[in-house]
Amino acid sequence: MPYEFIMSQKYTISEAEIIKVLSSKSGGYIGDDAAVLPPLDQEQYIITKDLLIEDVHFRIDYFNATDLAYKSLHVNLSDLAAMGAKPIYILCGISIPVDLNEYAKNFLEQLTTLCDKYDVTLIGGDTTKSTDKLHISITAIGTTSKECIKYRSLAKTGDTVCVVGHLGYAHLGLTALEAKSHINAKYINAFLRPKAKIKEGIWLGQQPEITSMMDISDGLYIDLKRLCKSSSCGSLIELSTLEYDDEFENSCHALGVKPLDVILTGGEDYSLICTVSTTAFSNIAETFKKTFDYNLRKIGKIITGSSIRLKKNNNEFIELNTKPFTHFGEDI
Amino acid sequence: MPYEFIMSQKYTISEAEIIKVLSSKSGGYIGDDAAVLPPLDQEQYIITKDLLIEDVHFRIDYFNATDLAYKSLHVNLSDLAAMGAKPIYILCGISIPVDLNEYAKNFLEQLTTLCDKYDVTLIGGDTTKSTDKLHISITAIGTTSKECIKYRSLAKTGDTVCVVGHLGYAHLGLTALEAKSHINAKYINAFLRPKAKIKEGIWLGQQPEITSMMDISDGLYIDLKRLCKSSSCGSLIELSTLEYDDEFENSCHALGVKPLDVILTGGEDYSLICTVSTTAFSNIAETFKKTFDYNLRKIGKIITGSSIRLKKNNNEFIELNTKPFTHFGEDI
Repeated sequence: MPYEFIMSQKYTISEAEIIKVLSSKSGGYIGDDAAVLPPLDQEQYIITKDLLIEDVHFRIDYFNATDLAYKSLHVNLSDLAAMGAKPIYILCGISIPVDLNEYAKNFLEQLTTLCDKYDVTLIGGDTTKSTDKLHISITAIGTTSKECIKYRSLAKTGDTVCVVGHLGYAHLGLTALEAKSHINAKYINAFLRPKAKIKEGIWLGQQPEITSMMDISDGLYIDLKRLCKSSSCGSLIELSTLEYDDEFENSCHALGVKPLDVILTGGEDYSLICTVSTTAFSNIAETFKKTFDYNLRKIGKIITGSSIRLKKNNNEFIELNTKPFTHFGEDI
Repeated sequence: MPYEFIMSQKYTISEAEIIKVLSSKSGGYIGDDAAVLPPLDQEQYIITKDLLIEDVHFRIDYFNATDLAYKSLHVNLSDLAAMGAKPIYILCGISIPVDLNEYAKNFLEQLTTLCDKYDVTLIGGDTTKSTDKLHISITAIGTTSKECIKYRSLAKTGDTVCVVGHLGYAHLGLTALEAKSHINAKYINAFLRPKAKIKEGIWLGQQPEITSMMDISDGLYIDLKRLCKSSSCGSLIELSTLEYDDEFENSCHALGVKPLDVILTGGEDYSLICTVSTTAFSNIAETFKKTFDYNLRKIGKIITGSSIRLKKNNNEFIELNTKPFTHFGEDI
């Protein structure tokens, strides 16, 4: 925790106060140079780290501190869910511009409250000022047993490709917020407060027939392409499975975007993609439905090659004309 | 790894290229939503996280990419050393302004090279753009056995207080760099490339007579005060032990700072404070000297109360008139 150059700015909260907020619920982990993770008997630690940057990933004018706490936590828990792991700890790094110090304090209070809700303990981090934007860096740690860990690299030709959760909702929400347009709150909430598929991820991790899994943070098309690349395979998506209702279609129309583009390339949903041995799909889908009260959606299959092929009902294939989102605008 | 709003900026490196740089030396850890930590037999994982923010902790005009890689790694490894742990993994989050994308690429290359040097594996992280400054967030993970972990909270009244490493060197370097003044390169290097006391921390961790330990990142006075607060005790520092040579004194004079203030309150040295049972000090100091070829310096003792008392040779006590550095300029 290095010290800093510029000490002239005035903060109405001190770092000591921030540490007090964080320590009160840390279960004794905070207070040393580093946190000690208890030894595990049968399980293994799984670790991930995601950044959330003001005006890159969120805007203060439509993210209140609770939204941001929710999103910061869930984007990280989603990574653990995608591995089949149960979240247990986070570390939070935050650099705070002087004009956002009350916002940041609220954020940290909400973050610890949310951690409580999800049985996650905040065990450390770092707090500094920022001379410009608010930057948040969360490290999340989960556990699972070796046989339940799911990777991206083990999808097999013939496997059924499934999706857990909505596609495109968050992108509609983002588009509406950026355009200051009115839209159903469920789309706005999907962007502001995505809900990591924690229980689903753990449950799917326990099914040996699930061959691979990852979360959908950057959009179905690009993320499925990443999974396929890891597994040295391609995929065929049945576009008829990517159905949407009138409300979704009308919202897309109002916002000037195409429903299928949004579903294929919209990011930030934090749904899951998984692949499952074809013969096991029916059983797993049935139990999933009973357990979670919504469908494990079959959207296609794993094929040889390296392409993501988009098949229409009439057996024609279409090309994706919308460029998928990437962090630096590069081609994939 | 969420996607981002603003895709118009042009980067000459892609995120895929960055991941390629990082993955090439990651030993297979990078490529999934999260990294899987191997189970440990006898030891425990220790984890820490530090942020380094452009124009708060470093400036691009005098930190080259190698300096910054060195510093980013060592400030984190220092936290592990302070716990008695051996570093083994890091995760690196980096948000990159468009005009620093080549700098950032060099930084990441140097970081992986340095990781190799210290037997540390980069197992994950996140890469995004920044609309303003370069922000770096490192999470470092080490291991040690339960009986070798050192905390801040177990110093006992009567214990000898020791320091491992220089005090004030980094602050002199920072002061000279900010003032664009000429100064001995060892002070500049102490600031740009602090060397975490990795081997010393591990060794001290193995000595049962070392009762507490922490690193000195914000200055001896404030950090010793933190250790004392954790241990519910005070400390008496013998100022005569905080000796300095003519060169240090002359450099302070040239920069308009007082040597004792610099030694007591200058941050960024990443030296270690530890406390040791008084009867064991001689033996430990002797073996330390033989092992590391420099002194474990005794600077005072742990006393009752909660103050840090500064004792002169003539048995008078002085007050610290210089305000210690804190992140937000608050009182401690």
